[in-house]
Amino acid sequence: MSIMRYSHFFPKTQKNTPSDAQLISHKLLHQAGFIRDSVAGRYYLLPLAIRVQQKIQKIIKDEMDNLGYLEMLTPVLHPKTLWKETNRTNSVGFELMTIKDRGEFEFVLGGTAEEMFVDLIRKFQISYKDLPIRLYQFSLKFRDEKRARGGLLRLREFLMKDGYSFNTDEEEFKSEYDNMWQAYLTIFKRMGLETIPVLADNGYIGGEYCHEFVVESEAGESRYFVTEDLSYIAHEDVAKFSPDRKNTGDKEEPLKEVKAVRGTTMEDGVKFHKLPLWQQIKDVLFVDERGRFILAIIRGDYDVNETKLLHVAKSYQLRPATEEEIRETLHSEPGFISPVGIKKKAKKEAEIVIVADDSLSTIKNAYGGANQKNKDLMNVNLGRDYQPDVTGDIALAKDGFGSPNGAGSLIAKKGIEVGNIFQLGYHYTHMMKDSEFIDKDGKAKPFYMGCYGIGVPRTLAAIVEKYNDDKGIIWPESVAPFKVHLVGLDLDNLKIKAEAEKVYKILQSHEIEVLYDDRVDISPGGKFADADLIGIPYRVVISKRSGEKLELKRRSEDHTSFVGLQELINMEILNNGKD
Amino acid sequence: MSIMRYSHFFPKTQKNTPSDAQLISHKLLHQAGFIRDSVAGRYYLLPLAIRVQQKIQKIIKDEMDNLGYLEMLTPVLHPKTLWKETNRTNSVGFELMTIKDRGEFEFVLGGTAEEMFVDLIRKFQISYKDLPIRLYQFSLKFRDEKRARGGLLRLREFLMKDGYSFNTDEEEFKSEYDNMWQAYLTIFKRMGLETIPVLADNGYIGGEYCHEFVVESEAGESRYFVTEDLSYIAHEDVAKFSPDRKNTGDKEEPLKEVKAVRGTTMEDGVKFHKLPLWQQIKDVLFVDERGRFILAIIRGDYDVNETKLLHVAKSYQLRPATEEEIRETLHSEPGFISPVGIKKKAKKEAEIVIVADDSLSTIKNAYGGANQKNKDLMNVNLGRDYQPDVTGDIALAKDGFGSPNGAGSLIAKKGIEVGNIFQLGYHYTHMMKDSEFIDKDGKAKPFYMGCYGIGVPRTLAAIVEKYNDDKGIIWPESVAPFKVHLVGLDLDNLKIKAEAEKVYKILQSHEIEVLYDDRVDISPGGKFADADLIGIPYRVVISKRSGEKLELKRRSEDHTSFVGLQELINMEILNNGKD
Repeated sequence: MSIMRYSHFFPKTQKNTPSDAQLISHKLLHQAGFIRDSVAGRYYLLPLAIRVQQKIQKIIKDEMDNLGYLEMLTPVLHPKTLWKETNRTNSVGFELMTIKDRGEFEFVLGGTAEEMFVDLIRKFQISYKDLPIRLYQFSLKFRDEKRARGGLLRLREFLMKDGYSFNTDEEEFKSEYDNMWQAYLTIFKRMGLETIPVLADNGYIGGEYCHEFVVESEAGESRYFVTEDLSYIAHEDVAKFSPDRKNTGDKEEPLKEVKAVRGTTMEDGVKFHKLPLWQQIKDVLFVDERGRFILAIIRGDYDVNETKLLHVAKSYQLRPATEEEIRETLHSEPGFISPVGIKKKAKKEAEIVIVADDSLSTIKNAYGGANQKNKDLMNVNLGRDYQPDVTGDIALAKDGFGSPNGAGSLIAKKGIEVGNIFQLGYHYTHMMKDSEFIDKDGKAKPFYMGCYGIGVPRTLAAIVEKYNDDKGIIWPESVAPFKVHLVGLDLDNLKIKAEAEKVYKILQSHEIEVLYDDRVDISPGGKFADADLIGIPYRVVISKRSGEKLELKRRSEDHTSFVGLQELINMEILNNGKD
Repeated sequence: MSIMRYSHFFPKTQKNTPSDAQLISHKLLHQAGFIRDSVAGRYYLLPLAIRVQQKIQKIIKDEMDNLGYLEMLTPVLHPKTLWKETNRTNSVGFELMTIKDRGEFEFVLGGTAEEMFVDLIRKFQISYKDLPIRLYQFSLKFRDEKRARGGLLRLREFLMKDGYSFNTDEEEFKSEYDNMWQAYLTIFKRMGLETIPVLADNGYIGGEYCHEFVVESEAGESRYFVTEDLSYIAHEDVAKFSPDRKNTGDKEEPLKEVKAVRGTTMEDGVKFHKLPLWQQIKDVLFVDERGRFILAIIRGDYDVNETKLLHVAKSYQLRPATEEEIRETLHSEPGFISPVGIKKKAKKEAEIVIVADDSLSTIKNAYGGANQKNKDLMNVNLGRDYQPDVTGDIALAKDGFGSPNGAGSLIAKKGIEVGNIFQLGYHYTHMMKDSEFIDKDGKAKPFYMGCYGIGVPRTLAAIVEKYNDDKGIIWPESVAPFKVHLVGLDLDNLKIKAEAEKVYKILQSHEIEVLYDDRVDISPGGKFADADLIGIPYRVVISKRSGEKLELKRRSEDHTSFVGLQELINMEILNNGKD
């Protein structure tokens, strides 16, 4: 039995908070002694946090095991050759860290482990009879994030549960996905978290099977939209909406070029022409990874969604074009770009892809730049005056826009992404040779894959964001570091001290997890404040005042009651979730 | 409840062994499907291995918790600045891997975590009342080993339990050390391993509190000596012995130089002079990290122990001197080096430290080189003809030498080092500023530290080295991946299949860990061979032959018996160590 006396516990609570602490979870976890910062984005997980993390892991493990997933472990140093096979050394959304060993062999510090799992599987002869193969691990992940956030919400090194399924085909995968969806809801619910499965972007892999599990919270970085009836839920990256029709009944007026000595913003155009913003064409110019100019055009009152644009333009990466490129290569002018005639004006070698948002079909007689300084075009009409290379949905949804399924307006939300599930399909098994099984017909076929992640410390932080008050954390019982915080008062009284020691030992002998505040030099107020800050669900006080009984209080309630020791031990709630 | 049907288990057993597999543990773990190689020294731990590893961890955790140690976790990327504080970027015995993040901030991939723990502790105000502070973690360790061994015995990335104690002083540390010693014996015993605490070298930290816990095995790389009564046990690096006295009664004869046209080996000297080997002086010349020439001299029948030499010479690193250095700088001759007059002959700028082994006082009238080709000196006597700068024990113990405590002869052994415990003393807390606590007298004092390691996968491999036969692994019950290997035969018989499914589910519902071989296309012989290879302690067979009963066999015994299901469930042994 472990020794859990607060007199020798490490660390004690702290009054100070880190200077960069913005989030309530960061402040409380620091003050209560759960975490301590090493360097930005890297934390020591202290004994209290490890106890919570292990409970979170246990719940995840339970549900993964239930689905037939087998726990294993891959090395965190991945041979870089594997990442080259899948071209991920260039294309991942998080920055890779690479390292060489003494033999100049290159490794990637694992950010996710798709290549490792596929590489493992292809070392074996797999038959259709072995499928599905379902594997997962809890392993360290490394992400060289530009911006780490305070606390555990965005770390550069963290424990992640990543699971991978190897199915025979898409059909089988779909039921795998549904099962995992349910398991995820259960996992988070067991920790006290209501999660919302938000349709999300699946990057270059694409497909409709990609969801973030989000806990609604102002502290979160995931932006998504819902309808009031929750019939539509989608991440900002992919959210659709119904654009309203504007002047589509108008007659097309003749195109004309006018002098327009104005500034370069959209507002400058509105002021100068005294026309509505929606009638203006918004031009946003990017350069993609192949050096192509991607000219995104959209109705003036909408914004371009870069994630959607990537898909529609079939690009992997975009950066804004520079003023120099606009002038020197395209022979246009910042603030006066126009799809009309730009391909003719530009240098021959410039490849320009004009990507028009669907919303441009909702307006007529638009206005905007004329590819030269202080000149604008009036009555610009799609099809007549310019022809996009691609047309599609590249618009950013906003709060209040009409939902695409007609269920009222979109409501903008923020949340913490604690997990995600998505199809990998044949992406990796096509790129990595020999990742195949022998099917019934004797033929080798690639696996159809899925991937399922949960960030463990971020989940811990999300719980704290949800469960706290002005005194500290209020842990849900399923993940609390201890069940009982036993507070001994008046311990200079030998009889009370002996009683407190007895209660401590009896609770332990009943395998009820107890943290015993046995300090003699701290005031009752100090001990209560520490108990409230740490947030263990049940506080039990022994003192002169409690007499033969114990004073019991739930952290989440104000009410205290007096109970006998046997009564306490028998309380069903204390006996749940024992190891 | 997890799904553990062998039909869907990953992976199945393999016939082949890796071409580099020398060790039985490597072969069996590979064939039985516990591990698979990624690249040299880095392995996938497959589901069977993870189950064993978690059981090993649980046993370690139990005993650490019992001693009041608190589990926590440090990042594995350590800020390199910390390692510079302790000068370990230059002096560690294993090769460091370093890496920079996008901000050019340098990290070390943690090989051990002393700096991290000290850095953590000094972030807090610690009082003597908080002490001792006892912490440990299970964390990945990275060692860029020159030579990784096949299997899990020497890895470049592995899970290690590392514990650290922060005591008020050496006195308190000593009892900490004794407790840990006992805990280590218990930990390994619970896994079926008898360990021998072997006195070992504590590197530049020194001190007498340093022990390796070794499992005797020919597969091991730790060389140590014991006496038959085990009253003396010491690692080769530090083992002492009693040199026998030779001709110490002889009169000192006059020194003389003779012509000696001979080869350069010790044997050449013996043949040429027809004198005993022990009477010859053996000279071994090194250069240390400061560029000093370290001339180690010893009785001809003994060898120099470089570890001991480092301590006696107070050097950190040694390399053999080159022939060029011997000739050009020392003006001596390879094979004819002598302590007599070498300092006078050498270039002025050469710093020479003559280190004499204690054994040189057991001989008189020695012979050896004369610092020039084909010239030897006869009747060389310590004190009269040469004066060492330091005298000490720099001799390598060997099998059959007299034990230093007079308990007979030393017996050479080989073993696998599965754990180690050692004092850090004030080494780190002196080098890292502010690593202090406030003592009773109000003064700041440095912590006295200890460090306690266990390599988890190596322990797993050591168990397999000890527990196997020609059919496979024989897991001790405490760490076995499952308790019961349920083998269903004749499963095309629907009644038997239903019975087997029932037994599988009932065993699971009683929380008895069971792996169920439910395959229909494998012969009984194939299933039995797999069961023997994997090595689960109890094999239970259901078949036409078993009738109403179950056929029970321990993996470690040949005998089978027939038991009823209820009888099986009630077997005490199956109910031990349940989660």
